Amino acid sequence: MAKERSSSATLLPQGVYIVSTGSVVGPKEGEGPLGTAFDRVWPDEGKRFSSYEKAEQQLLNEAYEVALEKSGFDWSDIDLVLGGDLLDQTISTNFTGRQHQRPLLGLFAACATFTEALGLGSMLVSGSNARDVIVSASSHHLTAERQFRFPLELGYQRPPTAAWTATAAGAAVLSKDAGPIQVRAVTFGRVIDAGGRDPNDMGSAMAPAAFDTIYRHLASTRTRTCDYDAIVTGDLGYFGLDMLKVYAQESGLIFGVELQDCGRLLYDPTTQDTHNGGSGPGCSACVFAGPLANRLVRGDWGRLLLVATGALFSPTTYQQGETIPCIAHAVELVAV
Amino acid sequence: MAKERSSSATLLPQGVYIVSTGSVVGPKEGEGPLGTAFDRVWPDEGKRFSSYEKAEQQLLNEAYEVALEKSGFDWSDIDLVLGGDLLDQTISTNFTGRQHQRPLLGLFAACATFTEALGLGSMLVSGSNARDVIVSASSHHLTAERQFRFPLELGYQRPPTAAWTATAAGAAVLSKDAGPIQVRAVTFGRVIDAGGRDPNDMGSAMAPAAFDTIYRHLASTRTRTCDYDAIVTGDLGYFGLDMLKVYAQESGLIFGVELQDCGRLLYDPTTQDTHNGGSGPGCSACVFAGPLANRLVRGDWGRLLLVATGALFSPTTYQQGETIPCIAHAVELVAV
Repeated sequence: MAKERSSSATLLPQGVYIVSTGSVVGPKEGEGPLGTAFDRVWPDEGKRFSSYEKAEQQLLNEAYEVALEKSGFDWSDIDLVLGGDLLDQTISTNFTGRQHQRPLLGLFAACATFTEALGLGSMLVSGSNARDVIVSASSHHLTAERQFRFPLELGYQRPPTAAWTATAAGAAVLSKDAGPIQVRAVTFGRVIDAGGRDPNDMGSAMAPAAFDTIYRHLASTRTRTCDYDAIVTGDLGYFGLDMLKVYAQESGLIFGVELQDCGRLLYDPTTQDTHNGGSGPGCSACVFAGPLANRLVRGDWGRLLLVATGALFSPTTYQQGETIPCIAHAVELVAV
Repeated sequence: MAKERSSSATLLPQGVYIVSTGSVVGPKEGEGPLGTAFDRVWPDEGKRFSSYEKAEQQLLNEAYEVALEKSGFDWSDIDLVLGGDLLDQTISTNFTGRQHQRPLLGLFAACATFTEALGLGSMLVSGSNARDVIVSASSHHLTAERQFRFPLELGYQRPPTAAWTATAAGAAVLSKDAGPIQVRAVTFGRVIDAGGRDPNDMGSAMAPAAFDTIYRHLASTRTRTCDYDAIVTGDLGYFGLDMLKVYAQESGLIFGVELQDCGRLLYDPTTQDTHNGGSGPGCSACVFAGPLANRLVRGDWGRLLLVATGALFSPTTYQQGETIPCIAHAVELVAV
């Protein structure tokens, strides 16, 4: 009984709405197949800043600005900011907090941070006196690569399973006031470690976590995959999404055309040389805050399950020979 | 209006209780003035493990175990785990998640992580169908020092303002079911950067953030400092707590004997050579989960305001010459 209760989705009976979103991306993301769906595309990775860490902070700041502008809210209307990023001690989110000066809750779930923030923010709006909340996630290719893998100047070869950390930020304003997208349910992930060790193949490592969360969400909400117009993971990429389908099939769960992945959608596989696709907290954040939110707002889709996935390792754990624990958080969204 | 609303404390009208706590510390913390108040004291820093990172995970795991044991709950009763630590990508909390297998929300607010988790967990228990939640924070002297400052083997001199990262973990089980301590209100901090740059003087950098959060909490709950049996910050230490008193006095806020600090309380200043006192997410977590919770449970205190403080920098931002943004989250607790 207790076990069943605690594995289940949290339904949000009181209306929680996404009033607006903001997506700001780098030039490579702008040149990809989704390019026209983002609010702002930077012409370069932010070379006007004295460091790319500062560029990432500005990217995030602009995502906040765009989302707020569209919502008609001011910063002073915002009760809480929830967000995170990939950098050590989540400095992008924390340093950007110096500017907005609203109460800030720092989160970390690697590339699953956006749905952790969206789910948690929705629960707070639903159940507390936090009325208007902004959630976010960001990443920057140049800050993440040198922190997690190698400095780009090294010119190392990337294996086909490697993902490309996106230069991107996404934000969403949540409110009790009606908006075009309603948050209906949230399923937070548990840590799943299937024994993957390769930081250049995080898609395969994360697929079991995505499966676990999707399975628990469907079971506890008594829905089937075909009840959704889209189930979009992030960031499993090419290898990971194929593995997810295999795991699902083995458990009798059938995905149809509704299954997609933010990492696959963000870049053109034939011309952009990103191998397994996009990754980084900013990937699912910008893909949701731009193109996916647009499809809900326009009414192309009625119901979306967004399942961002994260690989919870660090360079230290990799160097110590540890496996890679992973997590996926799911948020169910419906067009109003 | 909006501004006033959004700066205010969140009151928890529906009862949220701390059912039990667990505190596990290293040998130095055990030899300090609070030593007898902790649930478990390790005889060494965890040298039986192949890495101190693994030792920190076990420390945290034991804090969970102790808290659960005292509560009478099983892991299967727990709906959500909320917690964080100081290590890059919060690996201590995330890797420990491989064992408990409950839905996990990773948080980061540096040394303020415990009150972020406690406040957020309380709001979720109050306002959602998450009935039983466990919150935690941890740190380990040997993992943190080599990540943030220098490897200990270097034998560098510590300035008098430097804090000593505690080897400690604290956890608390929150529930809608009545328990000995009630969580009455939460005030989340905003990022305050007063321009401090010295990673060896975080107490001074964090004092303005502590002041801001305490001031906002008192103003919005219409309470005075003397309404609390204790207001305990963490981890301002000797220099930071004195600065907090100065800032307060300048704004007409008077603290009496009720003001204390987890970092000051944890070690003996005359014999333990920790200079400014303890720090690290585990410091306020273990001081609360051990001695402070005991005083509420025994009825020595009726009302406590716990205000953990965090310095939100990283070695990267320090090396880039950035100032240190800080934050403080406050949780108001009453003996039942």
